[in-house]
Amino acid sequence: MAQQEAQNGRPESASAAVSFSALKPQLFVEAPKANDAVLFYKAAFGAEEVSRSLNPKRKAEHELPLILSAELKIAGSTVIVADVTDDPASPVKTGGNGVVLCLETSDVEGAIAKAVNAGAVAEGEVVEGEGACCGGRVGKVKDPYGFVWLICALGNKCGADVEA
Amino acid sequence: MAQQEAQNGRPESASAAVSFSALKPQLFVEAPKANDAVLFYKAAFGAEEVSRSLNPKRKAEHELPLILSAELKIAGSTVIVADVTDDPASPVKTGGNGVVLCLETSDVEGAIAKAVNAGAVAEGEVVEGEGACCGGRVGKVKDPYGFVWLICALGNKCGADVEA
Repeated sequence: MAQQEAQNGRPESASAAVSFSALKPQLFVEAPKANDAVLFYKAAFGAEEVSRSLNPKRKAEHELPLILSAELKIAGSTVIVADVTDDPASPVKTGGNGVVLCLETSDVEGAIAKAVNAGAVAEGEVVEGEGACCGGRVGKVKDPYGFVWLICALGNKCGADVEA
Repeated sequence: MAQQEAQNGRPESASAAVSFSALKPQLFVEAPKANDAVLFYKAAFGAEEVSRSLNPKRKAEHELPLILSAELKIAGSTVIVADVTDDPASPVKTGGNGVVLCLETSDVEGAIAKAVNAGAVAEGEVVEGEGACCGGRVGKVKDPYGFVWLICALGNKCGADVEA
């Protein structure tokens, strides 16, 4: 998957050969309802839970941990469900309209540069995005039509914390 | 793909065996900017246009027809881009937050009934949804977490009007 990058050796655009390995719609649910949402998608659409990453921080010991990302398979496609937290550093905080599109790539900076070159606006810095997409580094762009795209490093934590 | 339906012969839930063949995020763009959006997604994310359905109705002869649905491939996934029109009968009019998730199935009514049974709210009737997803019959449900899902008949017009 990650071996398509090096085909374009021409220097006119350093990011021309950026490639993406996956696109995953990510649904942000008002915390702490993401777990209920996962149950709903299983019942309503036959979703299968592939993996789940939990937020290790709890406000109180008795509270259930929030879901950073639950990866579901629906009709062969991957959908991510996440609790929206009030952590100002979280890339999932300002998910725009509740649905963002997560693109995985091995070249986060190159992909963001290419999107910005095409007319998107980068929002914030590339951060270590625990829970965003697959837990790796993540940046965010808003396209000229108002849609938010998360540009994520290839999922180095995918499936690490399965609690299906 | 469509042969998974008949496994559950138990009568307790007539729709228990509903299956889905595809999930496609659908992005609704303020008309007439969908064509620009397609060009942007090609430049920014390497999208490939698979097919395009145009609205045969124009307000004026000199205007370009609006895009009912342009099917793009990004990172192996399908994304639909559509102009939002002011046709009150159009299922794409009230797309909620601009991104809806389109699920294809051979049993539109069964799928809607199952989702409603799980807690979703059906919105409107099942209609002949020109352009919605793939041009076939389409219904709409809003899930308990605010997300809108289009439940579409298997795409009988997919790829019919390629103008890439």
